[in-house]
Amino acid sequence: MVSDSIRMLDESTGGTRVSMVMAAIRQRIAGRSLTSGDKLPSIRSFAGTMQVSTSTVVEAYDRLAAEGVIQSRPGSGFYVASQAAALALSEVGPKLDRAIDPFWVSRQSLEARSAELKPGCGWLPPSWLPDDGMRRALRTLSRAAGPALAEYDAPLGLPPLRQLISRRMGERGIEASPDQIMLTESGTQAIDLLCRLLLEPGDTVLVDDPCYFNFHALLRAHRARCISVPYTPAGPDVELFAQALRDHRPRLYITNSAIHNPTGATLSPVTAHRVLKLAEQFGLTIIEDDIFADFEHAVSPRLAAFDGLDRVIHIGSFSKTLSAAARCGFIAARRDWIEGLIDLKIATSLGGGRLSAELVLNLLRDGGYRKHMEALRQRLSRAMGEVTTRLKALGIEPWLEPQAGLFLWCRLPDSIDAADVAREALVENIVLAPGNVFSLAQSATGFLRFNVSQCEDSRVFDVLGRSIARRR
Amino acid sequence: MVSDSIRMLDESTGGTRVSMVMAAIRQRIAGRSLTSGDKLPSIRSFAGTMQVSTSTVVEAYDRLAAEGVIQSRPGSGFYVASQAAALALSEVGPKLDRAIDPFWVSRQSLEARSAELKPGCGWLPPSWLPDDGMRRALRTLSRAAGPALAEYDAPLGLPPLRQLISRRMGERGIEASPDQIMLTESGTQAIDLLCRLLLEPGDTVLVDDPCYFNFHALLRAHRARCISVPYTPAGPDVELFAQALRDHRPRLYITNSAIHNPTGATLSPVTAHRVLKLAEQFGLTIIEDDIFADFEHAVSPRLAAFDGLDRVIHIGSFSKTLSAAARCGFIAARRDWIEGLIDLKIATSLGGGRLSAELVLNLLRDGGYRKHMEALRQRLSRAMGEVTTRLKALGIEPWLEPQAGLFLWCRLPDSIDAADVAREALVENIVLAPGNVFSLAQSATGFLRFNVSQCEDSRVFDVLGRSIARRR
Repeated sequence: MVSDSIRMLDESTGGTRVSMVMAAIRQRIAGRSLTSGDKLPSIRSFAGTMQVSTSTVVEAYDRLAAEGVIQSRPGSGFYVASQAAALALSEVGPKLDRAIDPFWVSRQSLEARSAELKPGCGWLPPSWLPDDGMRRALRTLSRAAGPALAEYDAPLGLPPLRQLISRRMGERGIEASPDQIMLTESGTQAIDLLCRLLLEPGDTVLVDDPCYFNFHALLRAHRARCISVPYTPAGPDVELFAQALRDHRPRLYITNSAIHNPTGATLSPVTAHRVLKLAEQFGLTIIEDDIFADFEHAVSPRLAAFDGLDRVIHIGSFSKTLSAAARCGFIAARRDWIEGLIDLKIATSLGGGRLSAELVLNLLRDGGYRKHMEALRQRLSRAMGEVTTRLKALGIEPWLEPQAGLFLWCRLPDSIDAADVAREALVENIVLAPGNVFSLAQSATGFLRFNVSQCEDSRVFDVLGRSIARRR
Repeated sequence: MVSDSIRMLDESTGGTRVSMVMAAIRQRIAGRSLTSGDKLPSIRSFAGTMQVSTSTVVEAYDRLAAEGVIQSRPGSGFYVASQAAALALSEVGPKLDRAIDPFWVSRQSLEARSAELKPGCGWLPPSWLPDDGMRRALRTLSRAAGPALAEYDAPLGLPPLRQLISRRMGERGIEASPDQIMLTESGTQAIDLLCRLLLEPGDTVLVDDPCYFNFHALLRAHRARCISVPYTPAGPDVELFAQALRDHRPRLYITNSAIHNPTGATLSPVTAHRVLKLAEQFGLTIIEDDIFADFEHAVSPRLAAFDGLDRVIHIGSFSKTLSAAARCGFIAARRDWIEGLIDLKIATSLGGGRLSAELVLNLLRDGGYRKHMEALRQRLSRAMGEVTTRLKALGIEPWLEPQAGLFLWCRLPDSIDAADVAREALVENIVLAPGNVFSLAQSATGFLRFNVSQCEDSRVFDVLGRSIARRR
């Protein structure tokens, strides 16, 4: 499996000009800039664009036609086939350079056998999660009343859990009544439902550079046009943010405020205020993804707290702190948007998962949870220090020292390409997160994101050290 | 709550011409025939369309503008506002006649307090589900290894559950290897992911008339154009099916084969064969939704069994037979479509719910499951007989005698409008399923769908009897 995908990578990265042209067309189809029935660029013009000969483009188009991705109409040219989007989505993974594919880290991490090491993944190892609490919650649930075990959840989701979330948000300065909160199956589903509600195909969405790679994958699935603004240690670069709003009038901005993924940066109050003023001026809606909230030692600024859920929508989940096996997330938004969200949730997933909601409620109510989180924050803090020391010894420098969380965003020495290091590590069953999967502008070639909770095995540093030594 | 929605219904159904014009515009926006930035019909032309005066249209447009649904551009006309889709989706429920809204039954059923009676809903009462098995499964899981309780599921889903599903499909004559099966959070999410993979906005999709109402809601969310063909006791009307394929070239057909929702009809082998031949001729892909499979007494024809998963995609779920609280469904499809589906699943929900998958696996492996299903089928069969007798006594006639399942599709006497009966029943806290929520062509005004497992309380028949007596 692993050796197979490596082989395919080599074929395409080192590969021929024909594969390069094929990959470029596939990427346009996967990215929806070419869709079913669209005419492909003429052979002559595309040869110019790609800086190859016309015969290379002819060969590439012929092979794509043989695969059914495009169709030749004699005398008229080549057109995207009606099932091309399906084919392109399935092909874009293995055939393109997976190191810069937004699915790369997710798929490698989710497919990884438990024996593999995953310093690139975005979650805690099972042994860091509240295992005892989870087992207690399951036993408690095994004695619950029938409906808890058998019925769909209510459209908004379990009322006592929404009340609890409302109180917890209040502790972070965000006012949201329980009827402004809708439970979802996950933080990802929360953003997906919001995109369904707020976006039309072709709308522009602003993200941070770098940002969580799955935002790119999700926005592609919504046929949105994605633009990005560089992230600084205090939040987005405000000058460039203003310019992006002026030039592109994005409909949405998706970001993390408290513990930014992947950088670990924290939004400053002054940046928060300026971002909100600009959002108001340009009619921008903001999705604030706060799934790492419980990892904070002290409360830092939230856009939703300043804005009062007017143009900011706040989302969260319990996958990072309780369990990724019991899926449960939520949306807190203006009451007048909640009705539309309920309809979309029913249309696309019918009832929510009541069992997961009951488990999360049990776990959060359990007296052990706050103690567990306290200990977990200390443990992460220690791990952050230790991993920083070990990385620095290899010449790998954190971009900043995060106040909290799991992630260290690090620059490799000597302009080494992180994608090369990640591919090499994968051969040794180590999943890394190379910088450019987080960067729409592909501006993070020399970066890696480390999850400090997944770096306990020293093989991680041995393999990194050898890989860097070979490249210096 | 109930009295409120009844009041709004009366206002709009009995309501003024202005509300009618407003409702028509809202419906076009909700149905995506008008989208953000589109110009509205001119006042004069729309007055002609709606057979009202121009001053009525002026008033309706002004009110919609005041609500922010549309915007006036002086000298140019009225345009759909950028957040109109969100507003329209949230407004279409209460303001239009909810009895013909595809969300009506779902929302009333899911929002119902447990004290309410729900003969219109689509699932079994908790007491009919394998309660003991579920409690055993939860206790077993509370002793499972850490990853089962803490980690995301693999992208395809828990391997032993996929093997078990593959074997069970084999028993129904459908050949699908475990790597052709992907777990989803629900049957609904399965269809949603397939729509994401296979549809472009504006593509045409064929459904049965009548069909499960949520197909309409889901396809609307995908901006698909929906057409329908009448369903007969042996499957779709083949002549009209052929004509629909010739005239509209739909990309997809979504249907149930074994126990059709809402009619309880069973596809005949000869219809199955003709549908598949037509599908091949016109390049049609078919989604066969088989979530009621385990209710069958004897195996009836499946399109996927005849076709061998070439152009048929088969989906299933466990919400109807095990638990609606532990969400788990699946897709069985051509191997070359599975890769694209994995990417879409990751992009829109990241990891699957491993806990639900582990619970379903435990329940299905439990020796008690087959015995439970045997008893359940007998119980449903008895209930079907009893409910049929009680309905006939009220002059309510089943359209056919289903071979199995939960549903009776029934015609009211004397051309009584089922929507009126359903609204009246709701005042008495009884949720019915009026025919037209299942019918794109609005051809089922005189029908109701009954779930025989939810008809044990004789108040259902008392209220029905009184409502019919008043109308005869």
